[in-house]
Amino acid sequence: RIDGQRLWHSLMNLADIGATPKGGNCRLALTEEDRLGRELVSSWFRDAGLTIDVDQMGNIFARRAGSHNDLPPVATGSHLDTQPTGGRFDGCYGVLAGLEVMRVLNDLSITTEAPLEVVIWTNEEGCRFVPVMMGSGVHAGVIPLETALAAKDRNGDTVADSLERIGYSGDILMGSKTFGAYIESHIEQGPVLEAEGIAVGAVTGSLGLRWFDVVVTGQEAHAGPTPMPYRRDALKRAAELIGDILALADPYQPHGRVTCGEFDLYPNSRNVIPGRVTFSVDIRHLENETLEQMEHALRDICSKHHEPGKVTVELQDVQRVPPTPFNSDLVDLIRASSDGLGIPYRDIETGAGHDAVFISRVAPTAMIFVPCEDGISHNESENATPEDLEAGANVLLHTMLRKAGI
Amino acid sequence: RIDGQRLWHSLMNLADIGATPKGGNCRLALTEEDRLGRELVSSWFRDAGLTIDVDQMGNIFARRAGSHNDLPPVATGSHLDTQPTGGRFDGCYGVLAGLEVMRVLNDLSITTEAPLEVVIWTNEEGCRFVPVMMGSGVHAGVIPLETALAAKDRNGDTVADSLERIGYSGDILMGSKTFGAYIESHIEQGPVLEAEGIAVGAVTGSLGLRWFDVVVTGQEAHAGPTPMPYRRDALKRAAELIGDILALADPYQPHGRVTCGEFDLYPNSRNVIPGRVTFSVDIRHLENETLEQMEHALRDICSKHHEPGKVTVELQDVQRVPPTPFNSDLVDLIRASSDGLGIPYRDIETGAGHDAVFISRVAPTAMIFVPCEDGISHNESENATPEDLEAGANVLLHTMLRKAGI
Ligand SMILES: NC(=O)NCCC(=O)O
Ligand SMILES: NC(=O)NCCC(=O)O
Repeated sequence: RIDGQRLWHSLMNLADIGATPKGGNCRLALTEEDRLGRELVSSWFRDAGLTIDVDQMGNIFARRAGSHNDLPPVATGSHLDTQPTGGRFDGCYGVLAGLEVMRVLNDLSITTEAPLEVVIWTNEEGCRFVPVMMGSGVHAGVIPLETALAAKDRNGDTVADSLERIGYSGDILMGSKTFGAYIESHIEQGPVLEAEGIAVGAVTGSLGLRWFDVVVTGQEAHAGPTPMPYRRDALKRAAELIGDILALADPYQPHGRVTCGEFDLYPNSRNVIPGRVTFSVDIRHLENETLEQMEHALRDICSKHHEPGKVTVELQDVQRVPPTPFNSDLVDLIRASSDGLGIPYRDIETGAGHDAVFISRVAPTAMIFVPCEDGISHNESENATPEDLEAGANVLLHTMLRKAGI
Repeated sequence: RIDGQRLWHSLMNLADIGATPKGGNCRLALTEEDRLGRELVSSWFRDAGLTIDVDQMGNIFARRAGSHNDLPPVATGSHLDTQPTGGRFDGCYGVLAGLEVMRVLNDLSITTEAPLEVVIWTNEEGCRFVPVMMGSGVHAGVIPLETALAAKDRNGDTVADSLERIGYSGDILMGSKTFGAYIESHIEQGPVLEAEGIAVGAVTGSLGLRWFDVVVTGQEAHAGPTPMPYRRDALKRAAELIGDILALADPYQPHGRVTCGEFDLYPNSRNVIPGRVTFSVDIRHLENETLEQMEHALRDICSKHHEPGKVTVELQDVQRVPPTPFNSDLVDLIRASSDGLGIPYRDIETGAGHDAVFISRVAPTAMIFVPCEDGISHNESENATPEDLEAGANVLLHTMLRKAGI
């Protein structure tokens, strides 16, 4: 059984790195804070006797040998990077629950048949660098290595340069690591488990997502003397677009989601009519067909508001991840482990993307969810109870043991 | 008569400092570019034999002695700072037309009775530091010196520190300079003069303006798992607000103007529901009563969208400038000078704020407008013809001579 206190203390120690005033974390991918987080957790890996490899994407693999080391490892893990106003559990829980599994097996001197691995994936959040779930995406062959390394943040800094700078451009070639199975634990980031008072979710699959940028171009002009009918106000048009775009989820409830999270206005001066607005669109749904309909509706909205010579609207593709079912045998094993431990569980889908979504393309994959307070995530106030985190980690321990064999 | 070529060349030389790719200028107030602009024009002032004073706000006064130096000077001038995507004429024309007046009088060895002054006012644009028209506002006693010096830009840099850094924290005490009259020439920044083919506008007064910030606060949450009805999306509410606020000008056409020019979204991440939006509102009208009605309507809109516990809306006062009539005798003198020169003119109001608006509180004040291409200003493509600029400067010359006496 997991040591819930030890797990909690590790989470809280890690949360000191990049701590924010409101009790959250800002450890953006491949920044100095990310480096410090990686160093701390790697030192814990070494203390637990794990051997560490780093691949070309900066993904970190910490391995515990088994008795049959020719078997592919049974892996777990998640990410350490956070949102700008992120919480203490998103990602970190999956990595540190994996570490806790290793520590418990050490305490009990258990050797599994297949080796075990805990993985830290690079840039899962996708807020500093797009594509999202980058390290796992490159590992799974979904995202070309060159595309990932060339990705730029808002200041023009690349992934390749950032990896070098923090010392995590590793020498393990992409594609040389394979898993027998991958089981990721994570906070739910939604309200379902908490509302139903259930400690564990057996995640059956994930919503698909489509990401876009919308560029609205008008003309800068003076806020004072320019008569209203002469104006080519990019913000006015953007406001209309955002109203229409957010309403696009209405016909597809309860599973349809639309978010505009990034917004940039140019030249951003109080007495200048805005000349250009760029904003992001994030569309999610469980069914690909519905995603397709939602994208069509988005394109219609953009066309409707596109007025050449006055204010133009351009829609740019950013990323697409299809809805992804997880491995049903592995989901069954999670259900059985929960039953075996007497921990109440329910099936659930994830509305968030996870590294597991990409890993599922190259290995049998599933996820274990635990509740988080008020369903709030991507927020400094993100919270979870030590008891739920412990329960989820116990299900992880038993599922990994069943899969790896002892 | 003005040397139109010399005036044009000075304008183009100055426009090399802070030149932007699209042919405009970025010389934000109290930046290194602003310093370079001030140094260049000051060197021209010295070459023209003018004596230079700098006051505590960094306002520069370049004086040409008269035959009766106990008379208060007849002044002209404007500003050298620009918008982030500003043009080559807004402000610079007023300063360099003043310089050209001095040069012509030197060429002709004319000494006026009253001394003449050309003034460069600090931070007229108000885009880096609020209040707008800051240097002239402090000079006129409308803005307290301490308020101005303490104003901060988006990075927290103060006016006081910036003045020190560029070496323009002068020793002339505020209030120690007075004018017998102030006549500012400027491009119209609107479409009227060009549309009617008239070279000169005799500006009778300015629209009033009221500036506000609107702060919309919701809650950050994850773009994926958060169901639509749970969301407290600050951007959704801001988009509704902006639609309503811009429409607020509709009943007050053709003189009502509403602009939202600054917009800041937090935390600005693609997969986070926005937790906070701050945007600016700029309201203008010719009549104070109507401004009052527009502000009431703005407050109603904000109240209507304010929903405690879900998404809150807060309206903050930023600045108010009442509609300002100019000195009718001085406007008459501008009309008479135009007539005398055979230059067609019409009366006009200014929709933009100008240093003249504040100076009019402490000296007889008026303005001379010249057309600008398509009425476009606060835009890199801002343009004006050498002929119109020359005509305006000739009217300035003759108005100053009439006022100062020879
Ligand atoms: N789990 C998580 O927060 N992933 C970020 C990617 C996304 O779903 O937007
Ligand atoms: N003339 C000019 O562009 N002034 C800026 C102040 C304003 O009117 O917004």
